[in-house]
Amino acid sequence: MSKHLMTGISIYTGEKFIEKGYIFIEDGVIREVGEGRADWELGREADSFQSFENRKVLIAPGLVNAHTHTGMGYLRGVADDVSFEEWLFNQMLPREELFTEEDVYWSALFSQLEMIKNGITTFCDMYVFPSTVCRSVAETGMRALITRGLIDSNGDGDGGRLEENIDAFNKWNGKANGRIKVGLGPHAPYTCSDEYLKKVSQIAYDRGMTVNIHLKEAARERDMYSFAKLGELGMFKNNTLAVHCVYLTDDDIKVISENGVNIIHNPSSNLKLANGVAPITELLEKNVRISLGTDSVASNNSLDIWREMLLSALLHKGIKNDPLAIPAKLSWKFATINGAQALGFEKVGKIEPEYKADLILVNLDDVSYYPLQNIESQLVYSGKSSDVLATMVDGEWLYYFGKFPKMDANKIKFEISERSRRINQEFLDSKK
Amino acid sequence: MSKHLMTGISIYTGEKFIEKGYIFIEDGVIREVGEGRADWELGREADSFQSFENRKVLIAPGLVNAHTHTGMGYLRGVADDVSFEEWLFNQMLPREELFTEEDVYWSALFSQLEMIKNGITTFCDMYVFPSTVCRSVAETGMRALITRGLIDSNGDGDGGRLEENIDAFNKWNGKANGRIKVGLGPHAPYTCSDEYLKKVSQIAYDRGMTVNIHLKEAARERDMYSFAKLGELGMFKNNTLAVHCVYLTDDDIKVISENGVNIIHNPSSNLKLANGVAPITELLEKNVRISLGTDSVASNNSLDIWREMLLSALLHKGIKNDPLAIPAKLSWKFATINGAQALGFEKVGKIEPEYKADLILVNLDDVSYYPLQNIESQLVYSGKSSDVLATMVDGEWLYYFGKFPKMDANKIKFEISERSRRINQEFLDSKK
Repeated sequence: MSKHLMTGISIYTGEKFIEKGYIFIEDGVIREVGEGRADWELGREADSFQSFENRKVLIAPGLVNAHTHTGMGYLRGVADDVSFEEWLFNQMLPREELFTEEDVYWSALFSQLEMIKNGITTFCDMYVFPSTVCRSVAETGMRALITRGLIDSNGDGDGGRLEENIDAFNKWNGKANGRIKVGLGPHAPYTCSDEYLKKVSQIAYDRGMTVNIHLKEAARERDMYSFAKLGELGMFKNNTLAVHCVYLTDDDIKVISENGVNIIHNPSSNLKLANGVAPITELLEKNVRISLGTDSVASNNSLDIWREMLLSALLHKGIKNDPLAIPAKLSWKFATINGAQALGFEKVGKIEPEYKADLILVNLDDVSYYPLQNIESQLVYSGKSSDVLATMVDGEWLYYFGKFPKMDANKIKFEISERSRRINQEFLDSKK
Repeated sequence: MSKHLMTGISIYTGEKFIEKGYIFIEDGVIREVGEGRADWELGREADSFQSFENRKVLIAPGLVNAHTHTGMGYLRGVADDVSFEEWLFNQMLPREELFTEEDVYWSALFSQLEMIKNGITTFCDMYVFPSTVCRSVAETGMRALITRGLIDSNGDGDGGRLEENIDAFNKWNGKANGRIKVGLGPHAPYTCSDEYLKKVSQIAYDRGMTVNIHLKEAARERDMYSFAKLGELGMFKNNTLAVHCVYLTDDDIKVISENGVNIIHNPSSNLKLANGVAPITELLEKNVRISLGTDSVASNNSLDIWREMLLSALLHKGIKNDPLAIPAKLSWKFATINGAQALGFEKVGKIEPEYKADLILVNLDDVSYYPLQNIESQLVYSGKSSDVLATMVDGEWLYYFGKFPKMDANKIKFEISERSRRINQEFLDSKK
């Protein structure tokens, strides 16, 4: 049992702004949040207490990164400003072949270090060694939906990937106080056969797992397959995360809307890899739920959901010549409650009684918040990851004013540097 | 006379990366920069010395914000997600009417505080009270081209604006060790008569002043006037900053290229106000010099040129479906040397002997720079304003590890908060 009271603090609940208020957290869950002073009784009941009186600090819901590949930390900056073919086939894939399970473990920690610092409390991952990634999440304290990338087009059948994914589900799903979920990660329709997608969909259905899949990222995929076809394979019986969705037909949008498919919008990655801009305003007209993802550091090159929040609010205005497209408040929802709901986490993404205490402290003394006139607008259009002073998941501080109480940041940076040196050397040697 | 030596530091000159080197600054000018250890002689000659051995710090050129309105600091967050007409006519202009000369002075300081913290060393301004803005620049230590917004379509003729602009030129041009330049700021062809633009162009020509003007920002301006016409009015006899240029005809691009007109690209502002995306790749094909601007906090809403640098590198790739469009190295040039040259500052924007010591220290210990594989890529795609540890102009530290040696940051924030309260109250009162 733990009871924590914070007072004299500004609060953005995700719905409204409280200039000065308090929040009471019991066993990792928000029990009470209000304006003004907390009751004396509440102060007596708390076993820890923080006053933020006379400090310009805001509590806001933690952010959700609904699409990334945490194992790719070694690939930041390694191959930018090259063609897609050069990037994928000559740079990414040959290097990834060299990653060991330990490499993936350290990269998963490194990626979580970056996300925690940037105020991200929940993420969704698609990579290899899913049990190892789950172990890293158990250690860091984050909330996550972990999926293993599934492919059956590599000439090795499925190479035991699905089995490995199910094994991670059996070991880790619901563990760490419910912080960890395990879903299935079929990579894409062009790397998975129909039969395989059907099988994966049925396994997901039998176990209540979320399906996490890249769909229609590149132009060539527009007419390669349809959402209707994926529905026929049984995919949308499950909670599905449809990642990217840049090239959708009207029929696709209809199927997405009718089946409650979640769209994960990765605006930076889609621009950087020259794919384009997803039709988010069209999807919103059909009441589709939109969440935001960074994609990996190889195509972004940061795990900074503030940037995606800003970009999603700016980009569609400019492309559609509509200054009213995606207002700040909506972009904030993309980056918080929508992401949590898409990933299947209940009572996450808002500051309200009964919600998980997944939250961040934001530095309102930064110039971005002067003069303070509209908190939503200033968080989305002016705010940035470096405004995050502290990050809490399940009532526990994972980052607190420059420190990572549960992580050895220097050790992680050292491992990333040394391992990337080895991987780069092996990559060069393999070219000889 | 001052001689300052920094050693054991990483350096990005704007052209190349030195993993460990030194820099020697004499009287605000870079005298020597090199790899490895500095000569013993150099150490003896220096009268101040800093070693960055064992700290992950990079020296890079200071950034240039080639378009802003520093007086608009009170308008951040005040009217976002509204139509352009509501924004300009019902929100911006009536509030700006309420600004006093002192309000503009404090806002100019506040905007410079933000820019300095974000690693911007040089900027170009268009606003009112130009002599007052020059005075603020003399105080802050930044480098700037100051222009007064000129309009003769308000029913008051030109209302003495041009005279005020020339007066600022006479008082301030070339002052503060050459840090201050004064140009002319005709607002736009739709707020200035042809005759007035002709007169302004001639005055600029007679005095060697730069002309700073908004051109073809909105679709309705595409066929309203042509660059050929502006040339006939004598505008391009002068160094000209053509700001925005979203809606250019092929003929316009030809005139721009033939006359060496500088394009100031403001990607965030153009998206946010729903104008669209400037044809930067087409301009580059004609060898046009591109620089970057933030525009004001009313349409951006930050004075953060890192964001514009990132966006200019991402946006055109996505829009043109070309992953090779605007590589990191080019976007960096937009934000440094190109801006300095456009504004008419010589020997600014690179780290090289004889260049001004306008530079920043960047925190290479941030996750953005792990693993360190490609400094240009990591500065542009992963880097952010909060990586700036210190900012120097003309050999003087304006920001240094959290402190502003020449500014009272708390006083400035207080003034901005109090004055915005008054302005908002007067605005509400005026509606009664």
